[in-house]
Amino acid sequence: MGNHMARNLLKNGYPLVVFDVSSESTSALKSDGAQVASSPAEVASATHRIVTMLPESSHVQEVYTGSKGIFSAIQDKSLLIDSSTIDPSVSQHIAGEAQKGDSVYLDAPVSGGVNAARDALLTFMVGGPETHFNQAKELLSLMGKNVVHCGAVGTGQAAKICNNMLLGISMIGTSETMNLGIKLGLDPKLLASILNMSSGRCWSSEVYNPVPGVLDGVPSSNQYKGGFGTALMTKDLGLAQSAAINNKIPTPLGSMALQIYRTLCNKGYGGKDFSVAYQFLQNEEKKK
Amino acid sequence: MGNHMARNLLKNGYPLVVFDVSSESTSALKSDGAQVASSPAEVASATHRIVTMLPESSHVQEVYTGSKGIFSAIQDKSLLIDSSTIDPSVSQHIAGEAQKGDSVYLDAPVSGGVNAARDALLTFMVGGPETHFNQAKELLSLMGKNVVHCGAVGTGQAAKICNNMLLGISMIGTSETMNLGIKLGLDPKLLASILNMSSGRCWSSEVYNPVPGVLDGVPSSNQYKGGFGTALMTKDLGLAQSAAINNKIPTPLGSMALQIYRTLCNKGYGGKDFSVAYQFLQNEEKKK
Amino acid sequence: MGNHMARNLLKNGYPLVVFDVSSESTSALKSDGAQVASSPAEVASATHRIVTMLPESSHVQEVYTGSKGIFSAIQDKSLLIDSSTIDPSVSQHIAGEAQKGDSVYLDAPVSGGVNAARDALLTFMVGGPETHFNQAKELLSLMGKNVVHCGAVGTGQAAKICNNMLLGISMIGTSETMNLGIKLGLDPKLLASILNMSSGRCWSSEVYNPVPGVLDGVPSSNQYKGGFGTALMTKDLGLAQSAAINNKIPTPLGSMALQIYRTLCNKGYGGKDFSVAYQFLQNEEKKK
Amino acid sequence: MGNHMARNLLKNGYPLVVFDVSSESTSALKSDGAQVASSPAEVASATHRIVTMLPESSHVQEVYTGSKGIFSAIQDKSLLIDSSTIDPSVSQHIAGEAQKGDSVYLDAPVSGGVNAARDALLTFMVGGPETHFNQAKELLSLMGKNVVHCGAVGTGQAAKICNNMLLGISMIGTSETMNLGIKLGLDPKLLASILNMSSGRCWSSEVYNPVPGVLDGVPSSNQYKGGFGTALMTKDLGLAQSAAINNKIPTPLGSMALQIYRTLCNKGYGGKDFSVAYQFLQNEEKKK
Repeated sequence: MGNHMARNLLKNGYPLVVFDVSSESTSALKSDGAQVASSPAEVASATHRIVTMLPESSHVQEVYTGSKGIFSAIQDKSLLIDSSTIDPSVSQHIAGEAQKGDSVYLDAPVSGGVNAARDALLTFMVGGPETHFNQAKELLSLMGKNVVHCGAVGTGQAAKICNNMLLGISMIGTSETMNLGIKLGLDPKLLASILNMSSGRCWSSEVYNPVPGVLDGVPSSNQYKGGFGTALMTKDLGLAQSAAINNKIPTPLGSMALQIYRTLCNKGYGGKDFSVAYQFLQNEEKKK
Repeated sequence: MGNHMARNLLKNGYPLVVFDVSSESTSALKSDGAQVASSPAEVASATHRIVTMLPESSHVQEVYTGSKGIFSAIQDKSLLIDSSTIDPSVSQHIAGEAQKGDSVYLDAPVSGGVNAARDALLTFMVGGPETHFNQAKELLSLMGKNVVHCGAVGTGQAAKICNNMLLGISMIGTSETMNLGIKLGLDPKLLASILNMSSGRCWSSEVYNPVPGVLDGVPSSNQYKGGFGTALMTKDLGLAQSAAINNKIPTPLGSMALQIYRTLCNKGYGGKDFSVAYQFLQNEEKKK
Repeated sequence: MGNHMARNLLKNGYPLVVFDVSSESTSALKSDGAQVASSPAEVASATHRIVTMLPESSHVQEVYTGSKGIFSAIQDKSLLIDSSTIDPSVSQHIAGEAQKGDSVYLDAPVSGGVNAARDALLTFMVGGPETHFNQAKELLSLMGKNVVHCGAVGTGQAAKICNNMLLGISMIGTSETMNLGIKLGLDPKLLASILNMSSGRCWSSEVYNPVPGVLDGVPSSNQYKGGFGTALMTKDLGLAQSAAINNKIPTPLGSMALQIYRTLCNKGYGGKDFSVAYQFLQNEEKKK
Repeated sequence: MGNHMARNLLKNGYPLVVFDVSSESTSALKSDGAQVASSPAEVASATHRIVTMLPESSHVQEVYTGSKGIFSAIQDKSLLIDSSTIDPSVSQHIAGEAQKGDSVYLDAPVSGGVNAARDALLTFMVGGPETHFNQAKELLSLMGKNVVHCGAVGTGQAAKICNNMLLGISMIGTSETMNLGIKLGLDPKLLASILNMSSGRCWSSEVYNPVPGVLDGVPSSNQYKGGFGTALMTKDLGLAQSAAINNKIPTPLGSMALQIYRTLCNKGYGGKDFSVAYQFLQNEEKKK
């Protein structure tokens, strides 16, 4: 993801200083004209506008607050944009640290996959002060087509994990419903069309149906390859649950969706598209 | 419901013989020209095309197989259309009994509420042999705008309870998600718009949002009055679970949706629109 | 089960007339002195005290109300004792039918497995009028060591499915807890001992621990062979859910326990002891 | 709690230096002979054996790592014993910080309530190196009757949250089961006795039955007053879920138990004993 995003900035004439733990990633960008730094600190000392894209909260904390992290060499009035999907409270904590150094940190997680990153079609959900949002938008609009201001820092994360929690619930709900209806004698395409003309319709039933053969060009019709991995959905549902626990909010179906996707990961489906929930529910395996 | 449906048949010039346990219901139809019978048996002896609309499986069994029921006086080659929402296995059982008397029974549950019944805008989901479906369609299309053939007898019920199971799941999921996002600092309308442009969108988030003030003209913006009652949703989720248990099908979120709506009924929300799930999740009440 | 129970009656000098769809079962009893009937009706015409033991509600209905069923040839003032585990409402229905013929039907499901049946160590939970309970006790105490009067007809079933619902919940709860604790670094035996001296203790943690090696002589220490099958637990949890749905009672953990055991059945664990829930939760399988 | 624990150390002749944000707490101890410090740092500079008892992870972090915290003034080779119930990963983090200063931190959460603290009847579940466990035991055995070594640092917390997760599940399971059985016609005391002689028995059914009148001297027979508060159970279930999420472990019933207790807190039951789950399930309230 980060690689595609960086290349879209380069394409638009922005000089870049890049860092990644994998030198493979940065060497490709180097040949496109980027300068390669040896640490986040070195990036921070070279520029005052920094975009980060990392897998988990712990990586974000290390890259910002670690001994060779951004804060160890940050310049005054830097603009920090983190596109990782992480715990909103971690975003808020880092924003507080940034402020001490007279800088501003925005959370700006994305929706859209690797192809959307390559084609600059991502959606950015941004949390942070409005004035700095406008500065960030200049960069983000080169990497995505929608840049939405969600509110104070952390609300970008909140919007992202809310959407994905509802998506996870809807996908499992659609999978259960299609499985039940088919077992009760309904034709899969007919059932999908009835749901989609009725109040049961959702994105998962309409444009990403989890039953093989109902729609063309979706992962379920391609052995659940590609798409949005079950392990990533499980991670996002975990973030939603952590936020719900810390904020004392009941989310019964959200918590159950996490349990189901966690079980799928344990049973070997982590690398398949998250619509594989249908196969898991539907499949009767041989006796063990 | 049944009253409006009957009136639409009368309007179209069909002579009617009607029966209801409440004489209030039938007296209104009488003044519109219907003949009133004293039992289902009397209806069956007077006509060979019968439409029934009843609250629960037990009523359907009584009306068809009871001592003064339809089967006690049925004419050969009768066409029986049951628009009740009941257990598909009960529909199948009654269809079998009908066949013994050389008659045909179709299940034809509806979606759409009282207003749709009045305005002949219902959707009928019909299960039964295709030839008889075409005969039934002549009558049903006078009472609704969509008449869908779902397959063998019982599949009309299956389609209905599948749609409503997914609807119940989506509504609770939308309620949890809106509640979580709002508590995390997002504006309700902004959150709804983000979901609706993203993969979390569903009928409940788009056209029936459960958060007061997000949409106009929906029950949530009118103190959860009108709409589709929580007690009725609970009944339909119970039918879905019975079908799932009898057919050995896992439906984890469907079963949890039943538990949540059952709890709402127990706590006094049975008469409110089913989007009141949001209020239940959101509301912090005083200490007991 | 039924075979062992019959043999215990024979041993105590009671002449028997027996029927089973499997002639293998009855031929063994024949050589022990039982007379073999060709239908339930033939049994009913030969004796006025009848004990039935059948797998599911549908079999009980057939054996009592079918064309060659008990009621087709029943003698006045017969005592009918059904030891099947079935839906309490079916027991109540058959009791009503029995009463019409001036007979009495008691539900008397058992706890304890095949070995307990062989050794006359079963527990019978009996529902029906107290006077007839005392008559039934004469026979039941020859086949079990505990014969408990639970109340009106159907309450024997209620007691049975209540116990097994709590058992299913406790077993999954114990499995989750042991799995979590072990992954957090606790020794399995130490964790079990801490639970068992504390408020978390239950039958599943104390005498039937699901983690291999914690206890000797339990199915978990013998590859989950023997014991109480997952498919049978799933059936009983389904009966509990049907009763809960029909009686409008919320049972969130009971419903989730059913979903989990149903998933285990689908994934091939139906023939293993129900403590295999631990293995299902614990096991990380290879990528699919 | 902390107050009672401190007094038991004083009683046994140990001179104490104490700190609490509430001067009310410390003034009582002062009159019993304790010296009162003005910060955790002051305690740390006065003694090398420190016991802490705090409500949540955030307080523990503040007391140890804050600007006037223990680590700001710690002496070499101090022994730090934390009896708070917190996230095991926080315990592990603080243990790592302690080690840098050549000190040792043990987690030692307790089971047993205020009365057990007063009477020195607590159970301590201790995580940390065995040699230091033995040193800690000298102090802990003056405040409790059981001091169990659970393994490496963090395993004391793990044991505590595992026990309470299973307890929460069992209590809700018992509540559902008792409610279902009573509604199906069983006498509450009879049902409890059947469960307790069978495989459904657990601590919640045997010694803490949630149905009023089944047992004497338990909170359910005293309007759910006293005992272990629903809000505290909810906190512990949240810790269990955080640990499960961070360690990628499925706990479906544990997560559902959290959702149910969270809902109870929202509905005003937070201050009642956690057996009030029965009342919540059972109670039909008036229409809203």
